[in-house]
Amino acid sequence: MTDPLLTRIDHVGLAVRDLDSAVAFYTATFGLRVAGRERNDAQGVEEAMLTVSSPDLGASYVQLLQPTGPDTPVGKFLEQRGEGIHHVGYAVDDVVAALAALRDKDIRLVDEQPRHGSLGASIAFLHPKSVGGVLTELVQSAR
Amino acid sequence: MTDPLLTRIDHVGLAVRDLDSAVAFYTATFGLRVAGRERNDAQGVEEAMLTVSSPDLGASYVQLLQPTGPDTPVGKFLEQRGEGIHHVGYAVDDVVAALAALRDKDIRLVDEQPRHGSLGASIAFLHPKSVGGVLTELVQSAR
Repeated sequence: MTDPLLTRIDHVGLAVRDLDSAVAFYTATFGLRVAGRERNDAQGVEEAMLTVSSPDLGASYVQLLQPTGPDTPVGKFLEQRGEGIHHVGYAVDDVVAALAALRDKDIRLVDEQPRHGSLGASIAFLHPKSVGGVLTELVQSAR
Repeated sequence: MTDPLLTRIDHVGLAVRDLDSAVAFYTATFGLRVAGRERNDAQGVEEAMLTVSSPDLGASYVQLLQPTGPDTPVGKFLEQRGEGIHHVGYAVDDVVAALAALRDKDIRLVDEQPRHGSLGASIAFLHPKSVGGVLTELVQSAR
């Protein structure tokens, strides 16, 4: 038996129309706290990461994603489906090694090389067509 | 500051057409292991829970959901959207107290009372219309 490639649910990525309202909702309703907020132009989003579990349990997050414009992946998602769950991000120990292992299994990759993700993480997306319709993200945390 | 109502991402619930194939895929591709498999007639699903993180981190799961028929919530989801992410489940310490707190905040509940969930958990769903299009589940684990 090999070790699992995925070691944790790092986050769920939720597409929202208005980031400020969504942050206010998640903090007021569920008591979550904002771990970071940033703009990622490569991905076309303004986003906030809200901590769900305590760091000693290996932090996991609700990631709120507001598109920077209609012609972005999240903008198109909102147009087609409305607000909702956009993707799921799993922690991996080594994103480069994980991508190599998945390429060997003929999983279709969105990102052949890791790119910059939230909170300094190194991330890569797998194509939903290869993963049962689920846009799947691999996340190697900065820490 | 109050304690967060949600203490962990318990699972992501994925709608699949064929449970056996989906279990085979997630175990072979990502090295996940099956923690349990059961049929839940009240929810109209055959399902499997696959462990993502180690139990000492507070286990989290990929939940694979195959509808027992087309006229079930997951059956209708597949018909309308195809395979993909169906819902997200967050751990709570006390599902009855959490439902009361959310009712006080005018969150629309699918389940006014907890019901039987996977692996012996006590669960309740919040209505996606109240949670930015996200079908949200509260999970009080059996342990």
